[in-house]
Amino acid sequence: MKRIRLIVQYDGTGYVGWQTQPNGVAVQAVLEKEIEKLSGKPAALHGSGRTDSGVHALAQVAHFDTESRIPSDKWAFALNAGLPPDIRVQFSDEAKPDFHARYDVKQKHYRYTIELGAHASAFRRNTALHYHGALDLGRMERAASQALGEHDFVAFKTAGTRLNSTVRTLYRSAWTRHGSLLYYDVAGSGFMYNMVRILVGTMLEIGGGLCDENAIEKALESGKREDAGATAPPQGLMLMRVQYPSFDTADFVEVNEV
Amino acid sequence: MKRIRLIVQYDGTGYVGWQTQPNGVAVQAVLEKEIEKLSGKPAALHGSGRTDSGVHALAQVAHFDTESRIPSDKWAFALNAGLPPDIRVQFSDEAKPDFHARYDVKQKHYRYTIELGAHASAFRRNTALHYHGALDLGRMERAASQALGEHDFVAFKTAGTRLNSTVRTLYRSAWTRHGSLLYYDVAGSGFMYNMVRILVGTMLEIGGGLCDENAIEKALESGKREDAGATAPPQGLMLMRVQYPSFDTADFVEVNEV
Repeated sequence: MKRIRLIVQYDGTGYVGWQTQPNGVAVQAVLEKEIEKLSGKPAALHGSGRTDSGVHALAQVAHFDTESRIPSDKWAFALNAGLPPDIRVQFSDEAKPDFHARYDVKQKHYRYTIELGAHASAFRRNTALHYHGALDLGRMERAASQALGEHDFVAFKTAGTRLNSTVRTLYRSAWTRHGSLLYYDVAGSGFMYNMVRILVGTMLEIGGGLCDENAIEKALESGKREDAGATAPPQGLMLMRVQYPSFDTADFVEVNEV
Repeated sequence: MKRIRLIVQYDGTGYVGWQTQPNGVAVQAVLEKEIEKLSGKPAALHGSGRTDSGVHALAQVAHFDTESRIPSDKWAFALNAGLPPDIRVQFSDEAKPDFHARYDVKQKHYRYTIELGAHASAFRRNTALHYHGALDLGRMERAASQALGEHDFVAFKTAGTRLNSTVRTLYRSAWTRHGSLLYYDVAGSGFMYNMVRILVGTMLEIGGGLCDENAIEKALESGKREDAGATAPPQGLMLMRVQYPSFDTADFVEVNEV
């Protein structure tokens, strides 16, 4: 029995998200079906975490166990031959038997992309949020920095989701502008359901002058969902990088900074 | 009566091309339907030229005549409200009554994008040709330069198409590499059906060592289609810029060089 580790890239537009759901096709399920076709046996694929419907991954990590004799580094090629082109395995190797794609995560990096300008691009319609209007980037940058460090992010989770702990640590939380594109890059120990999208929604309201510029700080202190802003739409969000103590997707899938 | 000029951007993946065809939906037809909805009268839209099925446009130019009282600069917004998101009007203005989107073209710029590497990207599946294998970029650069200037490009047109003249002038014909992407940028007085794709197909054979490195020169001299290479697939091709004596799309839609 071997534990195979994959770096999976997907355009989430056509999927209900990473995790198998009753209401549509999940990336995980599509991959599990291909693994079963190749190995002849049902496989349970474990991802580093879920991504929501319409959210993308430049580099998601997942593992499964198999007795197949396909060489570890050939799994990427073998799977890609059968997968739809909006899911591409970028790398495969054999992990140690105790490696776990979800439990061992040290840090994750997400990016949210906003496209500024009067008219949306025909080519970014599924991978950016188009925003036409004035945004005060200085306010947004200051708001982003208020989320840095260890906080209870209970105000930044979707109501109803139950978790043991809502404390997370952010190592990076910053906006950068590249021409007509605005990137919010956030790296942390972990993220709750919709957390990045609520952070972005709140900062868009701050940048647009629709709420107080200390709204992030206030919501972190109060812990009230209503002190944070709306949930930004999914298509701008991408899982960019997953880091483990001894494995880093950025060594195989470059995080293009522009 | 006013002549309205548009800069149209489209992801050609879902269309049979620019021009209305019996076998599917054309970008031109989608736009004409929206113009008719807004103006209440059928409109004939004239583009700078056709693009093939699956070929994209960062900046296509088109014009139509209308008696509608919609302000010239508002046509872009009005059309985008009804158009599908893979077609976006980036600019509209009133042109002089004698402006003609096709007859007045001075220069066009196309780009063909090749993505190198073991695995294709999930995000470029519709806008680049994935190529896994060795390519000699030096050979390809020399081949591209052989196409510069005025030549009879009869060997680089699809057999069966009839034209008055097959002489064209290329002002730019060069490959550049940006990370894992390879761009072929070509600018000229005009292009025949499939001309850029046959040039690219030939240069891929040259770069892959499948044919003589002077194959472009030889095909230009012989005028024989069989001396040129295969037609590269459409998805890598994009119309980047159209220039007229007094109008240039690059003033409104930036040609991002990377």
